[in-house]
Amino acid sequence: MTNAKRPIGIFDSGIGGLTVLKEIIRILPGEDTLYLGDTAHLPYGTKSEETVTKYSIQNTRFLLQFNIKLLVVACNTASAVSLSALRKEFSLPLVGVIEAGARAAVKVTKNGKVGIIGTETTVRSSAYTREIKAIRADIDTIGQACPLFVPLVEEGWIQDDITLSIVERYLTPLKKEGIDTLVLGCTHYPLLKKTIQQVMGSGVTLIDSAEETALEVKAMLTQLGLIAPEREGNLPAVAAARRFFVTDVPLRFEEQGSRFLGEKISTVERIDLG
Amino acid sequence: MTNAKRPIGIFDSGIGGLTVLKEIIRILPGEDTLYLGDTAHLPYGTKSEETVTKYSIQNTRFLLQFNIKLLVVACNTASAVSLSALRKEFSLPLVGVIEAGARAAVKVTKNGKVGIIGTETTVRSSAYTREIKAIRADIDTIGQACPLFVPLVEEGWIQDDITLSIVERYLTPLKKEGIDTLVLGCTHYPLLKKTIQQVMGSGVTLIDSAEETALEVKAMLTQLGLIAPEREGNLPAVAAARRFFVTDVPLRFEEQGSRFLGEKISTVERIDLG
Repeated sequence: MTNAKRPIGIFDSGIGGLTVLKEIIRILPGEDTLYLGDTAHLPYGTKSEETVTKYSIQNTRFLLQFNIKLLVVACNTASAVSLSALRKEFSLPLVGVIEAGARAAVKVTKNGKVGIIGTETTVRSSAYTREIKAIRADIDTIGQACPLFVPLVEEGWIQDDITLSIVERYLTPLKKEGIDTLVLGCTHYPLLKKTIQQVMGSGVTLIDSAEETALEVKAMLTQLGLIAPEREGNLPAVAAARRFFVTDVPLRFEEQGSRFLGEKISTVERIDLG
Repeated sequence: MTNAKRPIGIFDSGIGGLTVLKEIIRILPGEDTLYLGDTAHLPYGTKSEETVTKYSIQNTRFLLQFNIKLLVVACNTASAVSLSALRKEFSLPLVGVIEAGARAAVKVTKNGKVGIIGTETTVRSSAYTREIKAIRADIDTIGQACPLFVPLVEEGWIQDDITLSIVERYLTPLKKEGIDTLVLGCTHYPLLKKTIQQVMGSGVTLIDSAEETALEVKAMLTQLGLIAPEREGNLPAVAAARRFFVTDVPLRFEEQGSRFLGEKISTVERIDLG
């Protein structure tokens, strides 16, 4: 297999990263993809940096067996705390959701006040703040952990009065701070975009890391000369191959996964990473 | 060490089982205890039976190193799906929270209509229904998964309008069914007792498995002649030894754990079960 024909590997703690895969499929329809959801260990968002890094290394090792040409860490928590460890441990092109989201936020903000919402571990890690300030040190960032958003999305309470109240509770302090840009720092959150936008008002731009990450994947593959060649610029004659792996079969995986991916997931392979 | 001086082992997926430990300490103050929270793998409530059983076996092996005289499975999900596997694999006295809660519900109900709330895996397993019907086949049971209760408790939104709305959303169907008894089938739920009672009304008795389990532990130790002898019936001259182990240090463990246990947790030992 030539270099460029090799698949892209993507991992997340569960199904949230499917929002990133969805964008990769949209932007790079000719690429073969392998998606690993480490559902036996989810969620990552409340666990320690050490534990999340251990899981991230296991996930990467598993995907490397398939000769992937690039790895996408499609989980904000794993990107926040384990990307540098992965860079040390493995020598393959790596894209994390945090860097892409941070760059987009810097481009978008006009008043230099950026809000970041995510899991507790992501927000505490200050990873977005570090990335943003590395580009423009004068930007103010305000973080807010929203631990109920993931279970609300997984419960499917998307357009819902209770969800609206919870979004208001978490986001009112950010609104009062006068931010003009809000990073959705968790792959589940794009599903709550409408309610979040309603609460924040039209003056605040929401940054969806999923799309930014897919653009970054395309840029990196182009730079490396690794875009699947015979399909470049065309819709593939034969549909690109997609495989889905999970370390546990959580309840309602297919129902929820299809909602995240925006299309039906046909086959999910169960693997054991210990 | 004589048989009766050996400690009691208790495991849960996280901190919820501390409500069971609290009752064991209250009812059996002279017993040494070892508590293991498998926080690297929490929550169990959304994972498959196979995965939960694998974790339960790992937890039990770890506690057996300390020569425990009895094991309490202080997690409803693990009790629901892995107790029989543990009984096959290990030959030590085992107490699960489900059997204790089921027995109490059968004693309490007058109209024979019992509601059961818990995680998705617990409710889907029908473990409470099986146990209840094994005692009295004519009792009707109605299960309701309440996946948002655990994150609400962990967020600390206990006396809260949003929590009240969510409790109403989940429990109104059970109220309409005319149950007179409601099993709190998850160790986190006793912290929401007040709100749950308010929604269900005073005609419904809440069954808190934690207390029932502690009574069952006492009965089993008495039957086996394994109550710590020199302390029986007296407050211990020297405080009983308590050790706490976790497989990951989740954020806010001490704050949350102390709320569950009702007293300060001083030392938590981090272990690695892979």
